[in-house]
This record gives sequence, structure tokens and C-alpha cells, in this order.
Amino acid sequence: MPGVPPSRFAYLGPSGTFTEAALLRLPAAQRGTRIPMRNVPEALDAVRGDDADAALVPIENSVEGSVPVTLDALVSGDPLVITAEVVLPVGFVLAARTPGEVTSIASHPHALAQVRRFLRTNYPDAAIVEVLSTAAAARDVVAGRADACVCAPLAAEVNGLTVLDEDIADNPGAATRFALVSRPSPPPPPTGNDVTSLVVYIAHDKVGALLSVLTELAVRGVNLTRIESRPTGERLGRYAFYLDCTGHVTEERVGEALMGLKRVCAEVRFLGSYPRDTDENPVAPPIGLGNHDFADATRWLQGLRSGG
Amino acid sequence: MPGVPPSRFAYLGPSGTFTEAALLRLPAAQRGTRIPMRNVPEALDAVRGDDADAALVPIENSVEGSVPVTLDALVSGDPLVITAEVVLPVGFVLAARTPGEVTSIASHPHALAQVRRFLRTNYPDAAIVEVLSTAAAARDVVAGRADACVCAPLAAEVNGLTVLDEDIADNPGAATRFALVSRPSPPPPPTGNDVTSLVVYIAHDKVGALLSVLTELAVRGVNLTRIESRPTGERLGRYAFYLDCTGHVTEERVGEALMGLKRVCAEVRFLGSYPRDTDENPVAPPIGLGNHDFADATRWLQGLRSGG
Amino acid sequence: MPGVPPSRFAYLGPSGTFTEAALLRLPAAQRGTRIPMRNVPEALDAVRGDDADAALVPIENSVEGSVPVTLDALVSGDPLVITAEVVLPVGFVLAARTPGEVTSIASHPHALAQVRRFLRTNYPDAAIVEVLSTAAAARDVVAGRADACVCAPLAAEVNGLTVLDEDIADNPGAATRFALVSRPSPPPPPTGNDVTSLVVYIAHDKVGALLSVLTELAVRGVNLTRIESRPTGERLGRYAFYLDCTGHVTEERVGEALMGLKRVCAEVRFLGSYPRDTDENPVAPPIGLGNHDFADATRWLQGLRSGG
Amino acid sequence: MPGVPPSRFAYLGPSGTFTEAALLRLPAAQRGTRIPMRNVPEALDAVRGDDADAALVPIENSVEGSVPVTLDALVSGDPLVITAEVVLPVGFVLAARTPGEVTSIASHPHALAQVRRFLRTNYPDAAIVEVLSTAAAARDVVAGRADACVCAPLAAEVNGLTVLDEDIADNPGAATRFALVSRPSPPPPPTGNDVTSLVVYIAHDKVGALLSVLTELAVRGVNLTRIESRPTGERLGRYAFYLDCTGHVTEERVGEALMGLKRVCAEVRFLGSYPRDTDENPVAPPIGLGNHDFADATRWLQGLRSGG
Repeated sequence: MPGVPPSRFAYLGPSGTFTEAALLRLPAAQRGTRIPMRNVPEALDAVRGDDADAALVPIENSVEGSVPVTLDALVSGDPLVITAEVVLPVGFVLAARTPGEVTSIASHPHALAQVRRFLRTNYPDAAIVEVLSTAAAARDVVAGRADACVCAPLAAEVNGLTVLDEDIADNPGAATRFALVSRPSPPPPPTGNDVTSLVVYIAHDKVGALLSVLTELAVRGVNLTRIESRPTGERLGRYAFYLDCTGHVTEERVGEALMGLKRVCAEVRFLGSYPRDTDENPVAPPIGLGNHDFADATRWLQGLRSGG
Repeated sequence: MPGVPPSRFAYLGPSGTFTEAALLRLPAAQRGTRIPMRNVPEALDAVRGDDADAALVPIENSVEGSVPVTLDALVSGDPLVITAEVVLPVGFVLAARTPGEVTSIASHPHALAQVRRFLRTNYPDAAIVEVLSTAAAARDVVAGRADACVCAPLAAEVNGLTVLDEDIADNPGAATRFALVSRPSPPPPPTGNDVTSLVVYIAHDKVGALLSVLTELAVRGVNLTRIESRPTGERLGRYAFYLDCTGHVTEERVGEALMGLKRVCAEVRFLGSYPRDTDENPVAPPIGLGNHDFADATRWLQGLRSGG
Repeated sequence: MPGVPPSRFAYLGPSGTFTEAALLRLPAAQRGTRIPMRNVPEALDAVRGDDADAALVPIENSVEGSVPVTLDALVSGDPLVITAEVVLPVGFVLAARTPGEVTSIASHPHALAQVRRFLRTNYPDAAIVEVLSTAAAARDVVAGRADACVCAPLAAEVNGLTVLDEDIADNPGAATRFALVSRPSPPPPPTGNDVTSLVVYIAHDKVGALLSVLTELAVRGVNLTRIESRPTGERLGRYAFYLDCTGHVTEERVGEALMGLKRVCAEVRFLGSYPRDTDENPVAPPIGLGNHDFADATRWLQGLRSGG
Repeated sequence: MPGVPPSRFAYLGPSGTFTEAALLRLPAAQRGTRIPMRNVPEALDAVRGDDADAALVPIENSVEGSVPVTLDALVSGDPLVITAEVVLPVGFVLAARTPGEVTSIASHPHALAQVRRFLRTNYPDAAIVEVLSTAAAARDVVAGRADACVCAPLAAEVNGLTVLDEDIADNPGAATRFALVSRPSPPPPPTGNDVTSLVVYIAHDKVGALLSVLTELAVRGVNLTRIESRPTGERLGRYAFYLDCTGHVTEERVGEALMGLKRVCAEVRFLGSYPRDTDENPVAPPIGLGNHDFADATRWLQGLRSGG
């Protein structure tokens, strides 16, 4: 039913992952049903098949390395749109059943990579056990297969573990960005600090094709905060581009830029306009390219056409 | 009264110039009053002051060298718009009172420059008399101050001269372009082969400022057929740019480009959209940038905004 | 010792992975020592610490999801350069100890994602067991923890497994690209079909900064075959860009483009010029931008400067 | 003889024009022979035919309207280069044989256009006599064919006239720019405030062709101070572009930009690098695009190529 807020939330499980921690930041998800899924494609398919109203999946810089999976799952299959983002600081902890000697430490390889310096300094002699996820590492500790694990604070709490060390990531500012995805619907209203995500396909083997794409954005003062080329799946060397831009589809600047991309690209898939989850102020548009300037130019053109 | 076609036509005189020949190509001018003016500024001021409904003035490649004068007169003073253009092949003739020996030939220096090779080959010994206009040269022949003159066919006819040689220009494809100028009014309807003229002012001393201007055009597939930088009159080295673009202000492509220029330029003065006077077909827009593509993109954006 | 070909090859282990299969494509590696490493950072550090002469690591589209890890490991720490690439078709097989009923299938989640359709059609009732790598899955089959696994042909062979189904990837054209990395050295000679890899850092929060980067390439006719923005590690939202370009650093076109990037970027890290491992012919440069045209222009400029 | 400074100077005559005043600013011309020519093409042909070592001709904003003539004469025929520029303030005077009533005023139409407001205010009832040049107007006053003339101070002096009013131009900052033209030779050494002139021909009917030209300049931080499209003479609508850029052909930035133009244009004709005749400081290049940055980038590239 359109207009009804989502109440059934799929997410990348299992329980205790960073994704669940991110999901709990959304008030509607706190009240609603939370459904852990085995992987990102299944989480998105749950939305496509109406088994869930929305799905929260990691989209960037995830310790689980799930970004490409998420991007691919977003664009293959029926259209979906992102309606919200959640940025979660990645605060790894070292957790054990009880304080004591640590001779083995389990975690996912990507998480281990982010705490390498910490482990080398503090637990130089511990055996490292690589497992499939940080949540699985926590369960391995519960089951006695490892003395300790590197995991999210939530996973330690869910599994009743004791936190031996907090904030152990070598780079303390790390964070993961999650996307709340739903079936196509009108975008949430603009807030003044929004992001628009899209994927564009360009004719391959064409020098300057990507330049044309970026020119369409720059001419309207639309800032690009992220770009990633991805193979289209047809062959290595054929790419699509995932773009995050500042602004909202209902703004003139963004609408005109999107129309420009639609004209010069082989295909454009709109992935949503949604509020940025950040305390930072948005980058101001260049001089002459503010929303006010767009409105002025529209009025001026109307005058020219009517001979005024 | 709006909607009433012009009936009083000022033009760059005197009678017998190429400008009058061009004016007679316009049916309304054949029926209306034709008022010769001494120079271009006075012709345009006659329109500004409502002493004429329209003025025909040379705008490009004129043998009289009046282009800069016309451009300057168009932009200084109250706004005017071009509503039609006339392109006239420049067919110089050598004319005399009667056939006979030619020992002196009069004409304007620019006209003489265009027939240099002809004169050197055919009249190597004739004395060259430089005078103020080709029409004045014809009158000098009538008055006996020169044996022959280089002038327009019309001037020979008006002055009752005998044409000794036709089509004597060294470069046979030469032509002059004239603009019919009136007070601001809704532009004539688009024909599919139109030109839009404007002058833009850009912040001086800024590398890349003109690049921004051209990018606004190129991104919308708007072709540039003419560009000229002109001093702004303040100081040498401070320029405005006169641009002729393909297309009509009522087309989406052109409208969007004009709005883009309005945003990035210090000032834009619209000089009109009007039919091109040529047998040539217009240059097709690049693939993906036709009017049809603009309409498609507009519909697509509306779909995104409504969540369709 | 400079000039001595590499004989000690680190690679992303364990034995039986696609990376080992790729390494065996290099004649020098067939003769030399092959050293499996636990992860990409350790493989590269082995080169940095002179425990290996070169390291082969997956760089793009790997089923192990190791691309971001590789990129990050390449740019953090002492400089390294890529001297060769190997592109390996990803031919998944379903392997078991002996033919028989298959009730459980193990593999890495990304590999499972690539054979989803195959498994759904042919083994709809089998339990799926997600493990840490495709090589680990093969060992799980040997150990009896799963009936079958999805793995590389080499892993089946190394572990003495029987191949039940070949070429089971849903998308048959999949491939993985590997990079052979060594300490800084003169690049291998150009072959006419080379790629140049680099990472550029641009001032954040600047509309159009990436546009400047791409313009530097496009102006010299340098094609971009891959681009990826990566967080710089400082904060989410601050990015570097990984670029793959056609051409070789010793070519004029590429050299001039690199100098241009050096001037407009905050920092440029050169990651090597090396032969493309493909049967496809390189994309021809645009008209007027071939190596021949660069040589012509250089001679012309010399003439201008000497007044010729 | 190469290296010998010019001693025979052709210029746009007759004696008493602004061009002669400009020529007298050059020390070598003060000592050398000064040869007045009837028009610009003949002045340039005198250099081509070795009847003069150099020619001074008006190139921009001339009251005589000779700009297009100069540009056309520069590019048709054997190559010539500009080796110096002279910028002369245009200080019109009203001159008469003796003080007294002024009932008729002679001048060239363009000069009259520049003093319109002055004449309307101070001599509203005088008859205006349009003649072929301001110098001719001065001679007409000598001959009694007009009471007064609008001319250059030099013309008044040369003809023994009394100056009635000084500095009568409506726009007091007006100036004319002259070019000293010689046969091809090494350019004068760079001064840090130079200009490089060229004419480029681009494939017609190509959207974005001029954009490519400007991009070649902007990418190297080369500023454009003047641009003018000119018909190529073949047909109306086919253009060449006259460009003035900041900088000197021996600078890396300018050299690289010229090579870029050479590659993307159908033809480039170099018209010389020469010191700017101005008290203004040159525009500084954008950050990262100074000569120092070009030198740094060159060294960096050499390091990459040698594996350093």
C-alpha cells in the first residue's frame, strides 16, 4: 500500500552484525520486524518479492567487503530505490567469554586487516583464525573454537561476551555506510543535505565517454562524492559507473543533470535520492549555480520567449 | 500595436547599396516605406525611437566593413532583437557611363580588395580612386570624377551605368549577411533551421571562462556558427563575446543552454531567434541530443520524481 | 640486483586458488619458487621486505572480493609497481570426492553468487555451506564436511576431487585479473597494447576536480578503462581514484597526460605500465591523437621556436 | 641577413595617421626609413617581397576599421610573424586652419562614430562630411573643403592645423593596437608578459570543435585574451579562429598547448610571440599551472621512466 511506512525489514545477517546495529538506528525498524538474511542478494530479493518492505544492506567500506555484491544486486533484477542511508562508525572490540589468556583470535579477514597493528602490538603470539564473518567469529568464541574474536560491539553483547579491548581499529575514523532499499516509490522529501545515487552505462571503448558524464554533472554544479566502475558482467573491460551525487532529484539542478545523463548514456538507472546521514554541512554549489540561480534563469528564459 | 507587421523600414543607405538590395528581398519591405540612413547607429536608433518599425543592417562580412559598428550599436542602448536575416551574394560589377577606355576606377577600399586580382589582370594601368562607399563610387562615375567604378549591380542600375564586367570578385562565393532588427517582441515561430544570436559578458582575467560558455552550449548539442570577442569599451583587453548558435529559443535544447549561460556569465543579452536564410540543411544535432531526446528525458525525470 | 628476472614469487594462497593458477601462466614463475601467502597485504609486504622478488595478487573482479584490499595495500606503504597482468577465465567446477548424491555444497559466498542459477536448477535441495575460500571448500570436501564444493579446476585437481560439472558459472565470460607486483624498476618495454595504472588524490569538496583529471587524459587521447574512488582512510567521503589507462609511460601521449595529472592533483602515485593480457586489439586513439601525430607536433613546435 | 635589426618600415599610410604615430614609438623606426603604404595588404606584401624589413599595421579596435583586412592579409600568402605590438591611446582632436566658426566637420565615419556625443553637444549645427580617412580629413581642411576635422593629434601637427578641442572621444579609454610584422624568424626572447597570436582552422559543422581548441589551452593554464571567428573565404559559414593567448612559444605551457592545437585542428598558423605593450601585470596562471609546476612534472616523469 503506497504511503504506508515500512514495517518488515530484511537485513544482512546474522544477528549481531554491524548491519543489525545500523538497522536499529532507524526508529521504524526498532518497532518493526527485523528479518536477517544470509546475503545481500537474498535481502534485496525479499523486497522485490514483497517478503519485506525494505532491506538494509552495507554499501560502502564494509568490513565484510560486500560493496560490489550490493551494487551488483541493486542493478540486476527489478528496480529498487534507496530511501535512507545509515553511516555507522566501525568500532571493533576484542571480545572473549571471560578475561584470561588469549592464544587464538578469530575474525573475518577484512576485519583482521583493520586491526593488524593492534594485534601485532598487543597479541603478537596469538594464532589467527580466519572465519566467514565477524558474527561467526563471536559464535566460535561461544563454542570454544577460539579464545577471542574481533567483532562489532553488538555481536559481543548479543553473544554474552566480555569486551577485553574497545576501539581497536588501527584507523579510528573508519565507518560503514548502509542503504535502506525499497521498491520504487516517490523519494523522501528533500532536506537540503541529500544524496542521489545512480548507475550509468556508457558505450565502451570510447575515449571521453566518462568525461561527458562528468561534464553533465559539473555544468549544473552537481558534486560527485563517489564513483566506481564495475564490469557489466558481459566481459572484463566493459563497465558501468556507480555514482553518488550531492542533491535531490526534485531540485532543478539535479533534475537537469539527470536528464543530461539520460541523453548521453546508453542507460541510466536511478537508485534514489535520500538524506545524507552526516553531521557535516553539504558542500555549497559554485557561485552562480545555486538553486536560486536556477530559478532566476528559468524566469529569464520565460521572458525571452514571451518577448518581454 | 503588437502583431502588426512592420511597414517602415530603415536601412543602411544610401540608395543603391547592397543593403537596399537585401531589403528588397523581404516582401513586406517591397510594399512598405524604405528609409535610407547615414550609418548603422542611426538606423538602429530610428527603431528605438519608433521612427521605423524595423531596420536592415549588415552584420557580417560586409564589403563596407560595418560589422563591428553593427554589433556595438546593437548592444549599447535599449534592447533590440533580430527577427530575420538576409544573405546576399556579393556580385560586384565594373560599371561605366558608356563602354570605352578605362583610365580610372573608383570604389571603396574593401571592395577594391575583393577584386584586386581582376583589376591587376584586366586593368593593370588604370588609376585607382578610393572613395567612401561603392554607391559613392557610382555617383562619382556619373559626375565624371572617374571612368568606371566597382559597385553592386543595383548601384549600377540606380545610377544608369553600363555594366562592363559582371561577377568580378576574385572569390566568387562571397556574400553579405544582413539582420532585420526590431524592438523586443516574441520571436518568429521556429522553422527547424533557425539561428539564435546573443552577446555574453564574462568576468575578465579568468582562464577558462570562455570554455565554460562553450561547454554550456556543447552539453546541449547546440552548435556555434560564429564567435567574436569585442572590447567592452571600458578598456582594451576587456571583452564581450558575440555568438550565433543553431536553433530557436523555444526549443528545449536552446532554452536550457541559454539558462546555463545566464547562470555562468556576468551578463547575457539575447539578440533574437530567427530563420536562417540559406538553402543548406541545418547541421543535425549529435546522437542523443535531438529534440526528441530532450522530450524523452523530460518524461523520464517526471517518472523518477513521481516514483513510477 | 637490477636486471635479474624475479625468481621468488609470492602469491595469494593457499595452494589451489585461482591466483596460483594464474601464477603458473608466467614462465618465470613455473621455473621459480612459489610462496603462498595468507592475504594480499602480506604478499605485498614480502616484496617490500625483499622476501620475494614479485607477488601475484588479484586486482579486479575476483571471486574472493579482494580488489579493495589489493588497492589499499598497493598504495599504503613503500611504492610498488605492477610489471605484468594475468587475466584468467573463471571456470568454476562442482567437485566431489566421488560421484554420488549431493546433499551439501560448500564454497565462498561470492563464488556461490556466481553459480546461483546453476545450483537452483540442478541441486535445488542441497544445503549450502558458506566457507572462507573456494580452496577451503575443496579441503572441506576432502575432510567430509561437505559432499561437494564450488571451486576452481585447479583446486579440484590439487585436492584429488572428481569434477561433477564444468563451467557452471551463470555468466560464462567471467574472468579475474591479477597483477604481478615488484619493487620500483624501469617499466617493461612498450608492446603497443599496454596499460598504465595509477592512483590520484584530489582536493575534496571540489566540484569538477575529477572532471579536471579526466580532461587531462582525454585531451591526449588517453583512454580510461577503469576508475574507482576509494576512501583515503582519513574519513568517509574523502576519496582517491584508481585509474587504468591505455598506453605506456614511455609514450609521449601518456607521459604528457601523467605530467598534466601531476600538476592538477594533490598527489599522483604511479603503479606501473605493463602489457595487457588480452587477445583484443587496443582501442585506436582518436583521429589526430596517434603517436605519429604527437611526433609531428613536436617537430612543428621546434620549427616555430627556431623561426623556421 | 638574419640577426640584422629591421631598418625599413612599411606602415599603413598616409603620413599623419595613427599608425605613423604608433610607429614612431619604436626606437628602430625613429632611426630607420618609414614607408607609407596605401593599405594593409600592400604593407604586408612589401615585407613579403623584401621591399621592407617590417610593417606596422593596425590589428584591433582601429578607428579605420582595418582589423579584418589585417587578419585576412596576415593569413593569405606567405607566412609572416608579429614581433612587437604597440598600443596607442586614441586621442582625437578637433582641428581647424584657424580658430573661428565651424560650419562643416570632416572625418572618417568610424572616427565620427566615436565622437558623436561630443559633436552633438558642441557643434549641433555643423554639417558632417564623411571622407576616406582621418588624415584625408585633415588635408581637406587644409584645402578648404571643410572648416574642421576630427583627426589624430599627429595629423593636426603634420598638416599645420590648430587644435580647437582635445580628447574629444566619447569614451576616453579608447586605444588602438598595432602589430609589427616581419618575415619568419626566431621570436624575440620572452619577457614574462608576452602574447602569442595564432589562427586555427577547424573542421566545420562539428559541434564542440571550438570547445576542443579552448580545452587545449585551458588544460595548460594558457589564457585567451581575444578570439574572433572569420570566414575562410570559401563560403559564408566556414570559419577560422584568430586567437591571442598569454605567454611565449618558448614556455613549456605554451609549447605544449600549441602542439595540442596542432593535433586537433585542421591547420594552425603561428603568428608570433611578442611582448605585450601594457603597464598591466600579466594574469597569473591558475594554481598548479605555473612554469615551475611544468618543470617539476617533467622531472617527475623522467623519474618514472627510469624506475627511480
